[in-house]
Amino acid sequence: MTTPRACSHLNRRRLLLGLALFPVLSPALRPASLLAQTDDSLPSWNDGATKQAITTFVARVTTQGGPDFVPVEQRIAVFDNDGTLWIEQPMYVQLAFALDRVKAMAPLHPEWKDQQPFKAVLEGDMKTLAESGERALVQLIMVTHSGMTTEEFTNIVTEWLVTARDARFRRPYTELIYQPMLELLRYLRANGFKTFIVSGGGVEFMRPWTERIYGVGPDQVVGSSIKTKFEMRDGRPVLFRLPEVNFIDDKAGKPVGINEHIGRRPIAAFGNSDGDLQMLQWATMGGGPCLGLIVHHTDAEREYAYDRQSHFGKLDAALDIAALNKWSVADMKHDWKKVFAFEA
Amino acid sequence: MTTPRACSHLNRRRLLLGLALFPVLSPALRPASLLAQTDDSLPSWNDGATKQAITTFVARVTTQGGPDFVPVEQRIAVFDNDGTLWIEQPMYVQLAFALDRVKAMAPLHPEWKDQQPFKAVLEGDMKTLAESGERALVQLIMVTHSGMTTEEFTNIVTEWLVTARDARFRRPYTELIYQPMLELLRYLRANGFKTFIVSGGGVEFMRPWTERIYGVGPDQVVGSSIKTKFEMRDGRPVLFRLPEVNFIDDKAGKPVGINEHIGRRPIAAFGNSDGDLQMLQWATMGGGPCLGLIVHHTDAEREYAYDRQSHFGKLDAALDIAALNKWSVADMKHDWKKVFAFEA
Repeated sequence: MTTPRACSHLNRRRLLLGLALFPVLSPALRPASLLAQTDDSLPSWNDGATKQAITTFVARVTTQGGPDFVPVEQRIAVFDNDGTLWIEQPMYVQLAFALDRVKAMAPLHPEWKDQQPFKAVLEGDMKTLAESGERALVQLIMVTHSGMTTEEFTNIVTEWLVTARDARFRRPYTELIYQPMLELLRYLRANGFKTFIVSGGGVEFMRPWTERIYGVGPDQVVGSSIKTKFEMRDGRPVLFRLPEVNFIDDKAGKPVGINEHIGRRPIAAFGNSDGDLQMLQWATMGGGPCLGLIVHHTDAEREYAYDRQSHFGKLDAALDIAALNKWSVADMKHDWKKVFAFEA
Repeated sequence: MTTPRACSHLNRRRLLLGLALFPVLSPALRPASLLAQTDDSLPSWNDGATKQAITTFVARVTTQGGPDFVPVEQRIAVFDNDGTLWIEQPMYVQLAFALDRVKAMAPLHPEWKDQQPFKAVLEGDMKTLAESGERALVQLIMVTHSGMTTEEFTNIVTEWLVTARDARFRRPYTELIYQPMLELLRYLRANGFKTFIVSGGGVEFMRPWTERIYGVGPDQVVGSSIKTKFEMRDGRPVLFRLPEVNFIDDKAGKPVGINEHIGRRPIAAFGNSDGDLQMLQWATMGGGPCLGLIVHHTDAEREYAYDRQSHFGKLDAALDIAALNKWSVADMKHDWKKVFAFEA
């Protein structure tokens, strides 16, 4: 059995040894990525330890001949979605979608007026809804997410996103994405990384828009799913969505989902909650160069401030373990010049 | 509800209309892929209807401004593995692996000497084994494929492939891949396609070698799987393989697996058995340009000849439906100049 190796952090001696292989570097030959700190790929990040941890990591793994060079096919980066790439307060966007769908479907279900948790949704009684527990939530998700083909569901999500607005910011949810993280996705891809989303959210709720919004195509989105069934209907093949959980891509499920979909261990992982803890462990404790980063919501003014006590996106154990494992913690208030692209 | 549309085949009129947009094409501007028939991307394919169906399809979907142009991100091609990309007779390679593993593990299991189906494996009694049914087969797979970490399993597969030899050809299995299909994979990728493997075989049995052998990376391999469990062992994260089926990527499971992993409908599908029928339907009956192709094993001399009665890779219903749907059927004996790269 091999000895457990933690994420191998920047080893200045090894880096210098590697560089010693190129004693006289002309500017043209000098590894461009070593200059990453000074370029402007991450303009919405303030200079500081967090930004430096990112650019130093990218420089290490992309420096050909360097001691920590990682071949391009192994440059896998995984990103949580809710609270890491876009907003998750006052509730997950997908839950807002489910509540809107209940309202849209209500005319066909007169019985919901007297039946919880639907009654609470229709009356906008969020207190009762919050108290009704996980089973009620699963019920709401199933009713609104199954009973149609995958194609029909994609259309429902797409249409909803066009009209739905966040109550506080009065903007489409697809504008409530974090500009610094968008830059980070692009920066990693520009450095040969494949970027994957690994979210507790529904995979088919995300895929209709992740390519346009994040530049992440459907085959690079991993998420929770319900079961589907292949059928020929009127001579046409369809996948019908069933009210049955297939996979929950959260907590210890994230490494499982990563292995199933990607089949390769990531070397960089980005999350914001305890749901991302095992994904961060999986990516950063396999030995070799790696980067773990937690987005810490500390900015009530520009976005929200929450962590250990939050209902959605609770960040508690993972924050403690981040310190032990030397994961970077992005303090939104101090590390981000801008949260959203639309800010002045 | 939209009217069911079958795969839209080459429409000469539409193609000509599209070409009419470029009345005077200099050689430099002429869509290169329209010349595909005459180039040598598929040297192991004999000229004929099958090769032409392939090159014509690729020309149509890659001709910018043409009536059937498909944007690059939608160019998804899916390939079955056993019998489509490599050999599957006299048994699936993965079954040969399982039998070898039983023999390797036998010293630790003295009870297997008297216990079926292990007894039959250890005695090389293939007749009893063949008669022992699916449940026995699943038992052999579970015993040999679970009880270790994903990393350990990858190492076991990798080491086995180095030493294992096919009895008839006396070669490593990774040399028993079909040269024309390898050319086809490369040809499609050169034309902007993402190529995926979608196999009934175990996803973790394939991933250790598909990148090297087929140029298909682990994140583009879809297959059957057993459940895994995330654990911290001695401070190190592992995924432990459990003796429990997670997903069977065969028959009606193939479109489900494609949707889960790829999240986009393929426009080209390649298979060789009834296990690929629904995948072919899913890829070719969604409307729009598409290509369905069945590899028909007709060459007992260079490889094997089998179809409707075969135990492994039975091709019966899919062959009948191929005719109705105008899928191409590659007749190995007549369409392939070469089956394996090592042929003179």
